[in-house]
Amino acid sequence: MKAFTSTALKVDAKGLWILDQTLLPQQEVWLHSSSVEVMLGIIQKLQVRGAPLIGVAAALQLGWQAEQGATVEELQVLAEQLRAARPTAVNLMNAMDRLQHALSVGGPLKLLQESQVLAEEDVELCARMARFGAELINTGERLLTHCNTGGLATAGVGTALGVILEAHRRGKDVQVYVDETRPLLQGARLTTWELKREGIAHTLICDNMAATLMSKGLVDRVLVGADRIALNGDFANKVGTYGLAVNAKFHGVPFYVVAPATTIDKKCLHGSAIPIELREPSEVCGVEGSFGSVEWAPAGTTVWNPAFDVTPEALVSAWILDQGVFTRADVKNGCLNF
Amino acid sequence: MKAFTSTALKVDAKGLWILDQTLLPQQEVWLHSSSVEVMLGIIQKLQVRGAPLIGVAAALQLGWQAEQGATVEELQVLAEQLRAARPTAVNLMNAMDRLQHALSVGGPLKLLQESQVLAEEDVELCARMARFGAELINTGERLLTHCNTGGLATAGVGTALGVILEAHRRGKDVQVYVDETRPLLQGARLTTWELKREGIAHTLICDNMAATLMSKGLVDRVLVGADRIALNGDFANKVGTYGLAVNAKFHGVPFYVVAPATTIDKKCLHGSAIPIELREPSEVCGVEGSFGSVEWAPAGTTVWNPAFDVTPEALVSAWILDQGVFTRADVKNGCLNF
Repeated sequence: MKAFTSTALKVDAKGLWILDQTLLPQQEVWLHSSSVEVMLGIIQKLQVRGAPLIGVAAALQLGWQAEQGATVEELQVLAEQLRAARPTAVNLMNAMDRLQHALSVGGPLKLLQESQVLAEEDVELCARMARFGAELINTGERLLTHCNTGGLATAGVGTALGVILEAHRRGKDVQVYVDETRPLLQGARLTTWELKREGIAHTLICDNMAATLMSKGLVDRVLVGADRIALNGDFANKVGTYGLAVNAKFHGVPFYVVAPATTIDKKCLHGSAIPIELREPSEVCGVEGSFGSVEWAPAGTTVWNPAFDVTPEALVSAWILDQGVFTRADVKNGCLNF
Repeated sequence: MKAFTSTALKVDAKGLWILDQTLLPQQEVWLHSSSVEVMLGIIQKLQVRGAPLIGVAAALQLGWQAEQGATVEELQVLAEQLRAARPTAVNLMNAMDRLQHALSVGGPLKLLQESQVLAEEDVELCARMARFGAELINTGERLLTHCNTGGLATAGVGTALGVILEAHRRGKDVQVYVDETRPLLQGARLTTWELKREGIAHTLICDNMAATLMSKGLVDRVLVGADRIALNGDFANKVGTYGLAVNAKFHGVPFYVVAPATTIDKKCLHGSAIPIELREPSEVCGVEGSFGSVEWAPAGTTVWNPAFDVTPEALVSAWILDQGVFTRADVKNGCLNF
């Protein structure tokens, strides 16, 4: 298998390595993913995360198993196990579809090749989105983002954060407001870590402070990623995105979704059809990570903890995809169904 | 000084006792506030909190000092120190105004009496708001609240949470969604603690999940408190209230402010004139309490941490005050200037 290196995923002669994102920013620990079983645990514990990166990691794992001599029947079973690891992330589904198709037409070797093509494609898709998005951004802008959508969420430069990184690399003076992104704090832990590494000015806020920033005219643009996009333009993303979109609409702040076309679910006509993963109450009753573990709510408190929410297309200013920037009119004309 | 007992404040022969709210729900520790200096620390560390309760605690502390023989001059200085302890809470200002007036017309004894009247009044104001508010609520309703506005925030049954408690006591079957209320988690720690004690069904959510609940039609009414109300009806409350109000408006969910008239700042014509306290970055970079202490953001991360935000009157369905329930038309007609 060819060597591959990104911010949070590596392939070398020993196999796959995943940067454990649950330990960031305090520790940088690489996990050796020696089997699909290990990878399933890594995905479910969110040690790897970000819809595009999950798809690439699962694909490369399956490619690795093919190289190690797994049979067609074994690879089919493993593909189904990987597909079920996170129900909302459509990239994972799309990746497994492609690999299973490759397997059926060309056997394990074709699957191995396709897994590597898929990883390289993700890098290229990110670069394209970043270029299209960066053109929209003017120097001096204050950008707001939710969750983490950078090199930790993809095999490349990222989606929403990739746009911001590219604008910065082009010399545009941008400042970023980072939603902490409860409950798992991907903004506070991961986006801050990436922005610090890149030397981009940023300010961390609690999710519930974004509306006030907007009311003060301090936010020029909101950029978020997506875990699944329906054909009508509705999309699922990390919980908190929807309320943010409502506030952006109310305040007249342009609101962009940045995602590769692999995030589009062509079988899904409308956001209401996107399944939303409900997670453990413990994530809301406290926090846990390499920074420690605390629980603040009274023991046994009932919790509602959806991992994602769905933002309707009416709240989106434009979709920044790897094929270009699409308006609501484009989406109404069926541009997502290419 | 007469004995006095509420959920989080007691007066006995030894003086004032404050339930340390930073230790809830894990520990119930009562602090002896033996001087204004001790009380200032208690207020600033948020060991006592809730705009009405802060006003009552400061007033009773000053009354206690009067009983202990403080001179008129000393009481004037102490009143000014207490007044400055939290800049947004107008009840504290109003309480000090009343006590300083009493002092000037009747000396320390009059101040002592006035401090006790003020505490008893707060209990009565809460009971009145609770009665007016409870009448609006139908059995079966799903109510959403932010921060803590119950017996831990007032000397009585509370403001917004007092309404919910009263509805429950009248046999109305209500269910409460509790915003955790980052950064200090008053909802997750305190409102859950109160609702559990009262046996009211409740579900804890992260602040950024409220919008999704509304979009699913699961919220019938939002009830919040206020730290200061301007004459035009704009009000300051715990950060997160404003974004919640925008979402309630967008989803057509009725949004109520519940506060005693002592929360109205008659010198303040418009919400933009309300000073907003900015607090320490550490509150956003992690959490600290009796449950433990963790910091998850990279060291030195820049933070914006306003304790409050301002909600414009246009987003409010009605103001539930101790004088009754007032609509936007009432407020436009100057009803807050009684």
